[in-house]
Amino acid sequence: MTNFRALHRAAIISTGTEILQGLYADTNARYLAEQLSGLGMDVVLTAAAPDEAEELETLLRHAAARADLIICSGGLGPTEDDVNRDVFAKVFGVELVRDEKAVAMMRQRFESRGRTMPERNEVQALIPKGAQTFYNEWGTAPGFFLPPEAPRLAPGHCALMALPGPPKELAPMFEKDGLTVLGERAGGGKLFVRTRTVHTFGVAESELGTLTRDLFRRDPAVKYTILAKTYGVDFRITARATTREEMNARIAAFEAETRSRVGEKCIYGADTTTMPEAVAALLLEKKATVAAAESCTGGLVSKMLTDISGSSAYLRESYVVYANEAKERILGVKAETLATHGAVSEETAREMADGVRRVSGADFGISVTGIAGPTGGTDDKPVGLTFVGLSSAHKTIAMRHVFLADREQNRNLAALTALNLLRRELLGG
Amino acid sequence: MTNFRALHRAAIISTGTEILQGLYADTNARYLAEQLSGLGMDVVLTAAAPDEAEELETLLRHAAARADLIICSGGLGPTEDDVNRDVFAKVFGVELVRDEKAVAMMRQRFESRGRTMPERNEVQALIPKGAQTFYNEWGTAPGFFLPPEAPRLAPGHCALMALPGPPKELAPMFEKDGLTVLGERAGGGKLFVRTRTVHTFGVAESELGTLTRDLFRRDPAVKYTILAKTYGVDFRITARATTREEMNARIAAFEAETRSRVGEKCIYGADTTTMPEAVAALLLEKKATVAAAESCTGGLVSKMLTDISGSSAYLRESYVVYANEAKERILGVKAETLATHGAVSEETAREMADGVRRVSGADFGISVTGIAGPTGGTDDKPVGLTFVGLSSAHKTIAMRHVFLADREQNRNLAALTALNLLRRELLGG
Repeated sequence: MTNFRALHRAAIISTGTEILQGLYADTNARYLAEQLSGLGMDVVLTAAAPDEAEELETLLRHAAARADLIICSGGLGPTEDDVNRDVFAKVFGVELVRDEKAVAMMRQRFESRGRTMPERNEVQALIPKGAQTFYNEWGTAPGFFLPPEAPRLAPGHCALMALPGPPKELAPMFEKDGLTVLGERAGGGKLFVRTRTVHTFGVAESELGTLTRDLFRRDPAVKYTILAKTYGVDFRITARATTREEMNARIAAFEAETRSRVGEKCIYGADTTTMPEAVAALLLEKKATVAAAESCTGGLVSKMLTDISGSSAYLRESYVVYANEAKERILGVKAETLATHGAVSEETAREMADGVRRVSGADFGISVTGIAGPTGGTDDKPVGLTFVGLSSAHKTIAMRHVFLADREQNRNLAALTALNLLRRELLGG
Repeated sequence: MTNFRALHRAAIISTGTEILQGLYADTNARYLAEQLSGLGMDVVLTAAAPDEAEELETLLRHAAARADLIICSGGLGPTEDDVNRDVFAKVFGVELVRDEKAVAMMRQRFESRGRTMPERNEVQALIPKGAQTFYNEWGTAPGFFLPPEAPRLAPGHCALMALPGPPKELAPMFEKDGLTVLGERAGGGKLFVRTRTVHTFGVAESELGTLTRDLFRRDPAVKYTILAKTYGVDFRITARATTREEMNARIAAFEAETRSRVGEKCIYGADTTTMPEAVAALLLEKKATVAAAESCTGGLVSKMLTDISGSSAYLRESYVVYANEAKERILGVKAETLATHGAVSEETAREMADGVRRVSGADFGISVTGIAGPTGGTDDKPVGLTFVGLSSAHKTIAMRHVFLADREQNRNLAALTALNLLRRELLGG
């Protein structure tokens, strides 16, 4: 393996006047920060500059003095707004050369849509001499990686990675080419580094920490951390090794240990897996169907279940039963139950789950009834009180929760808790 | 009115190592960027620095050389992580003095919760000499505004506004104290500046631009722009004047002109109003009820309708009818309609809307059926093809749309289009 120059400190720079006008959030910066942290690099700066050569130039110079690597997104289009290429050449002391393969790919992209590529688009194929081109399979502008070793006409040897601005081009390009380049560099050219994130739901951070206490300092080549997020708690396993195999073995060992300590039922997935995806995969695997009966979540559970393309295989129908009268008429919740225990009660959640299973003919019925807030709470039944229910051919259960956030978060927590109850059931009683 | 020093160019700096690890998005930066742009200021930089004195110091020095004003959020807590106060003193050449009123407010906050304030919290009341304290009614740490005129022990006269990091403290503090200070300064001390944003939905940017063409350069004291967003198109009216009254009169004149050109039916609100809020307000005003029949949106329309606390007044029930069999059994859609025209058709959308109105007894039935993608499209019925329906005592209508985005955006567009159809109906045939 080549003895590359190490890259430890990174700066992430987004370009685009719209970001500075607050028109949209800079999601690329967050994505890249997470990826680079996962590689074990220190992100020392994230910043956004307008599409103005002078502002971008001063910001790049500032960042180049603080970091070994700058990742710069956006500004690679064919118009006059897209000033980045020329500023890169100036700040990093590089000549731009035309990448003929990139020109051919762009031309083909236009032609496949029955259009002729405008001549001005050719500037997008200008790449710094000594840089590795990242060919764009998802859009037009290619990106590139200028390594620290590339010859420069100006002082400094800060590395530069340029990526297109649209997140749907940036993420796959980074994952295909960017990660490969950086994976070899992050450890100083002698190490492979990778992070695996394991997602839990429904267990407190303190409890998870107790179960895994001895893993935190077990291996100096593994950084093991626990992170409480708004919706669940993550374990992050970052392993370093001199070979890819050893790195992957370290990750696998720590993940297996984590799963065995915490229990599969508390872990819904790893890396990019979401709770709806985890539930959908199990429903498809078991060829099971589900229907939801929702009060406070107002359709959110069903919306999540149908986030995934192909969800018609497991969801045929669902019911939003906001009013008590609707709970009775549509799902057969007993008037007596509502009168005695109230709409937000274990008994109502059970009858909603049973009712929706019966009405729909699905294998599983799930239900949510609660007080999302901000109003509607009482001393007995505070804002955030929520019952989630599950009904199957074998049993009916309901669980009580109190969520302490605002309306939006309480509703998300309630929906995820219902999906998690179904997920645990699908894993086997 | 005092002749203040003008503030035109702003930098927004967020502090917090978590942002640089990608653990959460920097929503404060976006919020502040939007607010400052609204005031007519140029935001030349947004950036995030870790909780490390050296990184923050170099970033502040860089920003102070580029901007007249730095707004810095976070890092004002009582722990060693919170290095900002000392760095501010060093970079801006100011002495820190204890604000006794701030100490008393913090102490009272602890006592009202039956706790004694730890002594170390008192450092939070250290404010630069010559700064205006922003007392914190929503949390602990006070913020402040250090004007350009304040005496400095170091060169430079960049203004500094410090705000607490939690968005639920930052936003109300900025709106109460920050906007007042900046409103007077943004125009150079001689002008008041404010922005009003008017939201449209369902009309193309080009068409809106044609309707309002002559407004863009009508008044040199009014900046009038049009912005296409993912979900709708906004007009932004930024007016300047030497008195508040004159400024508000300019805003009002341009807003009225915009509304008259574009038509009230295309405008669902202004500033922070969302489509669900606009629909909810009309339903409450008309004392009308609604029920939804959703196929491709899978519950999203109902979820949006219940985003607002108090939604039980207008929504009692809704149905997710994903399967054709469910459309027939639950809503009475005719088997013949489904066989002849298909589930994604104008006829099915009409029968779904009629059916859900009949079954629920609501005043209005709304429906959505479409192909959200990424799979399921055909030559005749491409991905994105969507029909939204509306049924009332007087009529039944359905509209055809083709959305060209991904599954998530197509579903959001479909749900918003259904809500907009209801909104237009509620405004009067």
